Amino acid sequence: MFKKTSLILCLSLGTSSVAMAAEPTTTELKTSIDMVWVMMSAILVFFMHAGFAMVETGFTRAKNTLNILMKNFLTVAIASILYYCIGFGLMFGKSSHGLFGTDGFLLSGRTDLGFFMFQTVFAATCATIISGAVAERMKLSSYLLVTVVMTGLIYPIIGHWVWGGGWLSKLGFIDFAGSSVVHLTGAVGSLAVILFLGPRIGKYKDGKINAIPGHNIPMGALGVFILWFGWFGFNGGSTLAADPSLVPHVLVTTLFAASAALLSSAFYSKLRFQRIDPSLTLNGALAGLVGITAGCANVSLTGSVLIGLIAGVIMVEAVWLIDSKLKVDDPVGATSVHGICGIWGTLAVGLFDTQNGLLYGGGSSLLATQAIGVLAVIVWTFITVGAVAFALKKLSGIRVSSEEEISGLDFAEHGSNAYSLREAILPDLSESAGSPTFGKDLVERLNSLSVSEVNKSS
Amino acid sequence: MFKKTSLILCLSLGTSSVAMAAEPTTTELKTSIDMVWVMMSAILVFFMHAGFAMVETGFTRAKNTLNILMKNFLTVAIASILYYCIGFGLMFGKSSHGLFGTDGFLLSGRTDLGFFMFQTVFAATCATIISGAVAERMKLSSYLLVTVVMTGLIYPIIGHWVWGGGWLSKLGFIDFAGSSVVHLTGAVGSLAVILFLGPRIGKYKDGKINAIPGHNIPMGALGVFILWFGWFGFNGGSTLAADPSLVPHVLVTTLFAASAALLSSAFYSKLRFQRIDPSLTLNGALAGLVGITAGCANVSLTGSVLIGLIAGVIMVEAVWLIDSKLKVDDPVGATSVHGICGIWGTLAVGLFDTQNGLLYGGGSSLLATQAIGVLAVIVWTFITVGAVAFALKKLSGIRVSSEEEISGLDFAEHGSNAYSLREAILPDLSESAGSPTFGKDLVERLNSLSVSEVNKSS
Amino acid sequence: MFKKTSLILCLSLGTSSVAMAAEPTTTELKTSIDMVWVMMSAILVFFMHAGFAMVETGFTRAKNTLNILMKNFLTVAIASILYYCIGFGLMFGKSSHGLFGTDGFLLSGRTDLGFFMFQTVFAATCATIISGAVAERMKLSSYLLVTVVMTGLIYPIIGHWVWGGGWLSKLGFIDFAGSSVVHLTGAVGSLAVILFLGPRIGKYKDGKINAIPGHNIPMGALGVFILWFGWFGFNGGSTLAADPSLVPHVLVTTLFAASAALLSSAFYSKLRFQRIDPSLTLNGALAGLVGITAGCANVSLTGSVLIGLIAGVIMVEAVWLIDSKLKVDDPVGATSVHGICGIWGTLAVGLFDTQNGLLYGGGSSLLATQAIGVLAVIVWTFITVGAVAFALKKLSGIRVSSEEEISGLDFAEHGSNAYSLREAILPDLSESAGSPTFGKDLVERLNSLSVSEVNKSS
Repeated sequence: MFKKTSLILCLSLGTSSVAMAAEPTTTELKTSIDMVWVMMSAILVFFMHAGFAMVETGFTRAKNTLNILMKNFLTVAIASILYYCIGFGLMFGKSSHGLFGTDGFLLSGRTDLGFFMFQTVFAATCATIISGAVAERMKLSSYLLVTVVMTGLIYPIIGHWVWGGGWLSKLGFIDFAGSSVVHLTGAVGSLAVILFLGPRIGKYKDGKINAIPGHNIPMGALGVFILWFGWFGFNGGSTLAADPSLVPHVLVTTLFAASAALLSSAFYSKLRFQRIDPSLTLNGALAGLVGITAGCANVSLTGSVLIGLIAGVIMVEAVWLIDSKLKVDDPVGATSVHGICGIWGTLAVGLFDTQNGLLYGGGSSLLATQAIGVLAVIVWTFITVGAVAFALKKLSGIRVSSEEEISGLDFAEHGSNAYSLREAILPDLSESAGSPTFGKDLVERLNSLSVSEVNKSS
Repeated sequence: MFKKTSLILCLSLGTSSVAMAAEPTTTELKTSIDMVWVMMSAILVFFMHAGFAMVETGFTRAKNTLNILMKNFLTVAIASILYYCIGFGLMFGKSSHGLFGTDGFLLSGRTDLGFFMFQTVFAATCATIISGAVAERMKLSSYLLVTVVMTGLIYPIIGHWVWGGGWLSKLGFIDFAGSSVVHLTGAVGSLAVILFLGPRIGKYKDGKINAIPGHNIPMGALGVFILWFGWFGFNGGSTLAADPSLVPHVLVTTLFAASAALLSSAFYSKLRFQRIDPSLTLNGALAGLVGITAGCANVSLTGSVLIGLIAGVIMVEAVWLIDSKLKVDDPVGATSVHGICGIWGTLAVGLFDTQNGLLYGGGSSLLATQAIGVLAVIVWTFITVGAVAFALKKLSGIRVSSEEEISGLDFAEHGSNAYSLREAILPDLSESAGSPTFGKDLVERLNSLSVSEVNKSS
Repeated sequence: MFKKTSLILCLSLGTSSVAMAAEPTTTELKTSIDMVWVMMSAILVFFMHAGFAMVETGFTRAKNTLNILMKNFLTVAIASILYYCIGFGLMFGKSSHGLFGTDGFLLSGRTDLGFFMFQTVFAATCATIISGAVAERMKLSSYLLVTVVMTGLIYPIIGHWVWGGGWLSKLGFIDFAGSSVVHLTGAVGSLAVILFLGPRIGKYKDGKINAIPGHNIPMGALGVFILWFGWFGFNGGSTLAADPSLVPHVLVTTLFAASAALLSSAFYSKLRFQRIDPSLTLNGALAGLVGITAGCANVSLTGSVLIGLIAGVIMVEAVWLIDSKLKVDDPVGATSVHGICGIWGTLAVGLFDTQNGLLYGGGSSLLATQAIGVLAVIVWTFITVGAVAFALKKLSGIRVSSEEEISGLDFAEHGSNAYSLREAILPDLSESAGSPTFGKDLVERLNSLSVSEVNKSS
C-alpha cells in the first residue's frame, strides 16, 4: 500500500511545480501542519528519557549504573505497551462520572494515532520519575511492578480528571502540560515508595547525615540539557496545534522560567552554602521547568520569570528539608524537583493566570480550584502507590539485601559492571615514567595481563 | 540574494496580519509542509551518527576509543561528499535495465535538494554499521577504503533496485525505510570484512570464548537512546511527506516494536542467563527498530508488537550463535542486530503486511518476493565487499599489528589517549586520608606532579 | 483561556474530517508553517549549549569540570533574561543612525515572540564561546560579568549593524547566519579576555610548550556531534521561513562544508604531524560549520565544499600558530575555530557568492564590504571586551589564585568533584584476583570502607 517508490514519483521537494492528484484544502493542510508540530514534539518528549537516564546515572554511584539504566529503558517499553492496552482508554475514553474512561482500550474505535503517540511518550515520563528516587536499593522486579501500576492505572486516571474531560477539568482546574498530572504524580509516587523502602545504607548513621555524591556529574549535566531540550516539546507540543499565537509564547515562558530558576538556585545556594552548588544549580533548571509546566500558556513573560525565580529557591530549601530534617533519602531530589515545584507550579497558575489569577484581579477562586487539584493528586497517588508498595514489601520484598546493596546492584542483579576504565588512567602511569618508550612497554605489559585475565574469567 | 534583513521585514511570527507579495497557493503550502517534515527528519537521521559513535565507543575498550570516534566521523564526511559525486546518481538516476542509475551525478539536472539531503544522511548510516563490527583491530586506512566502496557503489546500487525504480521494486519488494537496503547491507558488509579480519587477540584462545566487556556502558546506553530518537526521523521521514494518515502510524509502530523487543530481549536473557543482561537489552531496542524498519508503514499496531517481540528473541540467540558457535568476533553485535533482524524485518512484511501478508490472507507471494530481495542483498554485498576485503588484505593489509592492537589503536594510530581521568579517582584518595586539609594537600601534590610531567613529555 | 481539554475537542490528528470554526486562509497557514520551522530550529540551537558544554568539558582537565559546566549553564540563563531586558531592543529596535536600536526593551510593543525566541537562543551561543577559551583559570564571578556585557551590549550592537537594519546591512554586508556576528564576536571577545588572563600554569614553562590533554575525548566528540546537529537549526532556521527553495540548500551546504573541513583537517594533520589527530579533526568539523555560516544561503554546493576544505586547513595552521608561536593559551582552540574560520567564512562570501562574488564575476566590491564588516566586528569587540577585562583585572581580579588553579576550580569554587569513579576501575582489581568470589569480597570490603569514609566527611 505504502510503497516508497510510488511516493517518490509524486514528491519533488524544492520545486513548486508538483503534479498533484488534487489541490489540498486548507483544512487538510492545517491537519498536516498540526501533525508535524505535535509529532516533532512527541519525538522530543521521547528523548527526555535519555535525559532522565543520564541525570539519574550521573547523580548516583558507579556501582548501580547498569541497574538504573535498565530501569529507565524498561519503563519506556512497559509504559508504551501498557498505555496502549489500558492507559489511553482509562484517560481519554468515554467518561464514567468524570472519574475514568471506559472505552478506547487497545485503541479500539480510535483513529487519532498522532494524539495517542504524544500522550504515550508523556505517560512514560511520569513513571520514570520514580526510578531516580528509589535508586541504589530497590529490587528491579518490584520497581517494574510499580511502573505497571503507575502507567496502567494511577497516571491515566489523574489524566482523565484533568485532560480527559473528568471532574477536575469541569471544576476549571488548569494544568496545561502537567506540573501536577505528570510531575507531582511521579513525585508523590516516589515518596510513597521510598517511605516503605527506607534510606540507602550509610546515608543516615549515628545521627549523622552523609552526602553520597554522584559519580559522573558531567553525565548528569548532559541529562539536564537533554531534559530542557525535550521540555520544549513537552510544553510546546501540549498546545496540540501549530498555533502561531500560542506556541512561541509557551516556548519563551519555558525558557525564561528555567533560566530564572537556574539563576535563583545558583545564587541562593551561594548565599546559603557560600558556593554555587553544581547539583542544586542543575536541579534548579529542572525546578523552573516543572514550575512553569502548568502555566506555560496562561501566564505572562514576567509571570514566567517570577515563577522560575521562586521555584529555584523553593527547591533548594525543599532538598535541604527533605534530606536533612525529614531524613527521607531521595538520591536525585525527585520529590523536591517534581513534587514541591509541581505543587508550586500548579498553585502559581492561580496567582499568575492573566485572566483569572489572584494577582491579575481574578480573585481567589482559581487558586482554590488549583489547590483542590493538588490535593486530589496527592491523596489518590499516595494512597494507591503506598498500598502497592506496602503489599510488595509484605509479599516479595521491595529492597535488595544489604550484601547486594553494598556490592552494588550492577553486580547483584546483572552480574556485570558499567565501566572498565583501567586504560583510562594509564596515560598517567606511562607519563610518570618520564619516557614514551617505557610508557609504551608498560601499556603493553598491562594489556597482555588483561588478556590473560580475560581468559581466566570466561 | 538572501539577505536576512530583508527576510526579517516580511516576517512577523506571532501575528496573522502579514503583508505578503501574494497569497500562497495550497500546493505551494503543501510543498513547504512536506519539506519541513522531511528536513527535520533528515536532521534526526544525521544525529543517529552520534548514537552509533557512542554505542561503538561504549561497548569496546578504552584504548581504542579515539580510533572508533575517528572512523565514525570520517564515515559521515566521506559518505556525504561521495554520495553527492556518485552515489545519488547511481541510486536515483535514469535506470539502466533496473540495475543502476546513469545520470544525476554531482546533482546535475536535479533540483530536489531536500530529497537529496534526506538520502545523503541515510547513505552514511549504512557504512557506519561496519565501524562497530571491525572495531579494535582494523587499520583506519583500510576501513576508509571500504567506506568509499560502500557509500559510492554497493549501497547506492541496492538502493536503486528497491527505491530507485529498479528490478526489486518492479517485483513488488517492500522495504519501506530500509531493514534490508540499509541495515542488512551494512551487516553483510560487516560480516564480509570481519571474516577476512579475524577475531581480536584474546577473544578465542585455547578453545575458550572470552568476553571482552565494553568500557563505558552508560555511554553506550546514551547511544541507544540517541539512535532510537533519530530512528523516528529515519522511519517517519521515509514517508517523504507530512501525511497525517501515515506519519503517526509509522511513529507508533516504531515505538511499539522497539519497546516490545526491549522487553522480550530483557526477559528472554533472564530466562536464558538468569539475569536481565544490560548489553542484550540495549541491543534489544535496536533489534526491534531494525525489525520494524521495513514494515513500519505496512503492518498493524499488533503486527509491530509481534515483530518486535520476535526480533528481541532472535537477536539474543543470534548473538550467542555468532559469538560462541560460529566464533565470529563482532564486538558490538552488528551482524545480529542489523543483519539477522534486518532479514527478519524484511520477511515479516511478507507475513504481517495488512494488504498482502500471509497472515492476512494474502498468500505467500509477497513473502517469496521479500525472500528474493533478502537473498539479492546478501549475495551482492557479500561478494563485492568480500572481494574488496580480500584485495585489501593481499595488497596493504587490513589489520593493525599485534603490538599495535595490544597497546591500543589510539596510541598506535593517533599517538594519543581518549581519557586522562586520574583526577576522577582522586576524591577517593583524599577522602580515605580522613581529613579535608590533607586531602587538599594531596590533590595539590599530585597536580603539581602533573605539571612537571607535562613539561617532560612535551 | 488555553485549556487543554477544549483544545482536544477540536483536535483529531489522523483524520481529515475536522470541524473547524472557519476555514483557515493560506496566509494564516503560511504563518503556521514558518513558525513550526523556526521554532524547531530554535530548539535545536538551544541544544547547541549541550554541545558547547561537552566539548569544553571533554577537552580540559577533570579537575575543572564542574566549573566549566556551571559557566555554560549560567551563560544560557543570563543571556536569555538579559536579551529580553536589553539585548533584543538594542538589536532590533528603531535604529539610531544605524548604530543601535532604541526601543522594544522588555519586548514592549513587540508581538513577534517566535522571532524573539530564535534570536534569544542565538545570543546565548555568542557568549558561551568565551567559556571554553578562558577555561581552567578564570574566576567564575568575573566570567559572569563578561557574559553580562557580551549578551547585554556587545553582541546586540553588532547584531543591529548586520541584522537589525544598521550601517553594515546598508553597505550590503552579508552574514546569513553569523560567521562574524556570532562566531567572530565570540572569538574576539575570547582573545581580549585571555590576553589579560594569561596562560594556564604549566602551559609555557622554560621556553617549552606543553600540551595539556583533555580528560574525556568521547565526551568532547559527542559535543561536536551535538553542535553539528544543532547547527542545522542555526543555519537552517536563519531563513526565518519554511522556504522549500532555500532551506534544503542551506542544510546541504552546511553538511558539505562540515564534511569537507573534517576531511581536510584530518588529512592535513596526517601530512603535518604524521597521524590523523583526533582533536584537530573534531575541531575541523566545527571549523567547516563556522566557515559556511555566513554564506550557507548564498554559495553553491561546490562553493560550500571548497569553503570547508580551506577552513579545515586554515584551522590546523591557526591552532599551531596561536598555541606555539603566539603562545596564547586557548584550551579548546576557540579563537582559531570561531575567530579565524569566522573571518574566512565572512570573506569567502565575497569570493563565492553566486551573484556578486569575485569568483563569479562580481568584482571585488562585495569582498571589500565583507572585509569592512570583519574589521568592524574585531575593533568594536576587542576594544569593549578588552576594556572590561582590563577593568576587572584591576578591580577584582579575573584569575583564580595559583593554589586554586592547581587544586582545580571544582574544589576551589564549588567545594566538590565532578567524578567519583573508584568503582569504575574495580572490575580490574577484582578480575586480577582471578576468582569471582574473592573479587566480590574485595568489592564489599572497599565499599564498606566507602561508607565509613562518608561518615567521616559529613
